[in-house]
Amino acid sequence: MISADIITIGDEILIGQITDTNSAYIARELNAAGIRIRRKYSIGDQKEAITGALDESIGQVDAILFTGGLGPTNDDITKHTLNAYFGSRLVRNQETFDMLAAWFAARNRTFEPVNQGQADVPEVCTVMLNKLGTAPGMIFEKEGTHIFCMPGVPYEMEGLMQSGVLPFLKQKYALPPLAHHTVLTAGIPESTLMMQIKDWEEALPAGVKLAYLPSYGAVKLRLTAWEPGTFSEVELAEIARPLYGMLGDAIYGTGDRTMEEIVFTMLKEKKLRVSFAESCTGGFLAHRLTSMAGSSMVFNGSVVTYSYEAKTQELQVPSEILMQHGAVSEPVVMQMAEAVKIKFDAEYGVATSGIAGPDGGTPEKPVGTVWIAVSGPQGTKARRFLFTNNRERNIRLTCLHAYNMLRKML
Amino acid sequence: MISADIITIGDEILIGQITDTNSAYIARELNAAGIRIRRKYSIGDQKEAITGALDESIGQVDAILFTGGLGPTNDDITKHTLNAYFGSRLVRNQETFDMLAAWFAARNRTFEPVNQGQADVPEVCTVMLNKLGTAPGMIFEKEGTHIFCMPGVPYEMEGLMQSGVLPFLKQKYALPPLAHHTVLTAGIPESTLMMQIKDWEEALPAGVKLAYLPSYGAVKLRLTAWEPGTFSEVELAEIARPLYGMLGDAIYGTGDRTMEEIVFTMLKEKKLRVSFAESCTGGFLAHRLTSMAGSSMVFNGSVVTYSYEAKTQELQVPSEILMQHGAVSEPVVMQMAEAVKIKFDAEYGVATSGIAGPDGGTPEKPVGTVWIAVSGPQGTKARRFLFTNNRERNIRLTCLHAYNMLRKML
Repeated sequence: MISADIITIGDEILIGQITDTNSAYIARELNAAGIRIRRKYSIGDQKEAITGALDESIGQVDAILFTGGLGPTNDDITKHTLNAYFGSRLVRNQETFDMLAAWFAARNRTFEPVNQGQADVPEVCTVMLNKLGTAPGMIFEKEGTHIFCMPGVPYEMEGLMQSGVLPFLKQKYALPPLAHHTVLTAGIPESTLMMQIKDWEEALPAGVKLAYLPSYGAVKLRLTAWEPGTFSEVELAEIARPLYGMLGDAIYGTGDRTMEEIVFTMLKEKKLRVSFAESCTGGFLAHRLTSMAGSSMVFNGSVVTYSYEAKTQELQVPSEILMQHGAVSEPVVMQMAEAVKIKFDAEYGVATSGIAGPDGGTPEKPVGTVWIAVSGPQGTKARRFLFTNNRERNIRLTCLHAYNMLRKML
Repeated sequence: MISADIITIGDEILIGQITDTNSAYIARELNAAGIRIRRKYSIGDQKEAITGALDESIGQVDAILFTGGLGPTNDDITKHTLNAYFGSRLVRNQETFDMLAAWFAARNRTFEPVNQGQADVPEVCTVMLNKLGTAPGMIFEKEGTHIFCMPGVPYEMEGLMQSGVLPFLKQKYALPPLAHHTVLTAGIPESTLMMQIKDWEEALPAGVKLAYLPSYGAVKLRLTAWEPGTFSEVELAEIARPLYGMLGDAIYGTGDRTMEEIVFTMLKEKKLRVSFAESCTGGFLAHRLTSMAGSSMVFNGSVVTYSYEAKTQELQVPSEILMQHGAVSEPVVMQMAEAVKIKFDAEYGVATSGIAGPDGGTPEKPVGTVWIAVSGPQGTKARRFLFTNNRERNIRLTCLHAYNMLRKML
């Protein structure tokens, strides 16, 4: 099986100023192409760190994928370091130069020498044209290892992966992808889940590996055929089938999809619409839906009602109920869900109200207390949850459970 | 200077199923404590990968921080691997056992053997009590290198960093933190910025390093004193001062803060409120504000109006204007911003309407066309932008520019 190392370059990664999302994208794409990642690592913008990484990986893996340090500014040293490492010299890449000249002309910006320099590349490399930015991608080869260099800007890197790196690797190696099958569950803690499926797990065929991937109230169960060609995706799905009997409607889908994607697909297929009345989630439910292209097919609009007045004015929550029960209460979320459904001409309304924290808790309603209601043609259901002390986590857990309650009603 | 390697364990990271955010958090915290990260790497859930990483890092750095593979399920092998590597045997940690027993009892859940096993740790390690989950943290030592093991669940890892790892390291080494000063700019492309501040950059004192960190329409300029104790944060701020003369109001703040944090602080200090009327951003503007604790001080509510009807009904956008100009137009966003301000009793209203993509573009209004309006006591301003073909990127760019327009009006 062919193997690769992913190396992301940048002091900003090593000091934690940015989270490296590039390597996850690259790993996903390589994995789907049937290439096993040996390791991913991140190093600083220092010549010795880059050459040290090259020394360690060349000859050990078939491919090395670098990102970062290809910008026009002085802190970007990747290209010069590679040029010296491979004993080459910089030459102008005319195709890149012409593309950049046209790009600057179209925007009435001066094509300065610092930008022109982006078109200079080591003579020994093969250029991958970057249509989304100024730094061309580069391919080097040494001792049977191919070294791919891409910029660190995520959408430029993604463009080069698709237009340059993956076509090159696929043509060179043509391997079957690793087979995976993922079953998505929500609402059962990881260790309880493990007890429930223990016998099934122990009877898994050799060569099939099970991973538990917990996140925000959900656990993904991923089956992997560890060597390419042993089990197909269809066979893995067959192996997973008994889980449906054991876990019932805690299974919300399969594959690498989010709860929101699954609910969106259900709404589309049934030609139904949803609207949101959000208090503690503050717009996050609507954001998650509208992040998906085509969401206007199932969504007219929604409202964020943070204050008492907004809840009364926009969703006709009676002041007496707010005074008597507080905003974080069953009658309030039920009214919110019912009113927002009518307000935006939707079949389903979803409402949230809770104490996201870190402050605002009381002995009866501690931080993490959240009420969620879903209203549909069959009526309105509300449920109380007690999540955590962490604001971001509470917002995400509320989102997962709100979509899950909607899914169960659909 | 003391140094550390960060190693995250998990097949799910290597196949890109999850993005590793833990290592960015750890890097940030170590950096602030004055510890330099040599490298970060991610490896799979295989015994040889873990022991290979230990062999490579022990003796090379002062500290190794591991996360992942400490769960109760069979795919979690980190503890057993370390136990064997250090030639130890598992013994019960009574404090952890008692805490777990109480936790399960409080939730009326059975304390099963699989959960009880979480309290067993290698005899040679020092335990860090984990109050947020079932897997205790562990500290090992070999050849002068300390090895810290933490679970991969982010909030558990964060808890152990604060309660165990950092106190241990600070007590042991007591080093001054690396000094940074970051100047935040928006609206100027990276290469233009570089030209504008070229002379200043070239005159920077030796030992002060400048990094350009571009993201979603903004560029952070980070100055770092590369050796501890050479320049203080105050001295770096003084070195950065001339930037204000060169860049004017493109500078929106300093430090490691987001545009939204800065606008939120301004609103709080001036005791002003904002509301949002969102079309293409679909709730993201409200979400970014309400993610911050205390946002109810500056925010009563907001509305997402996706359809024509919602814009007319909720924000009194006249049908004739929608028909004549389309939803993505200057008069529509201006009316939206003015109406939402009144609707939610706020001094400022911010509205967005655009073609987020990937579909829906026309020759006159290609994908990426976005109108943003801000309405305040001094009047209403609207501006047209042309962003990209990528939906997520367009939503984030619209958010950055909407908050930036609001900031300039405040």
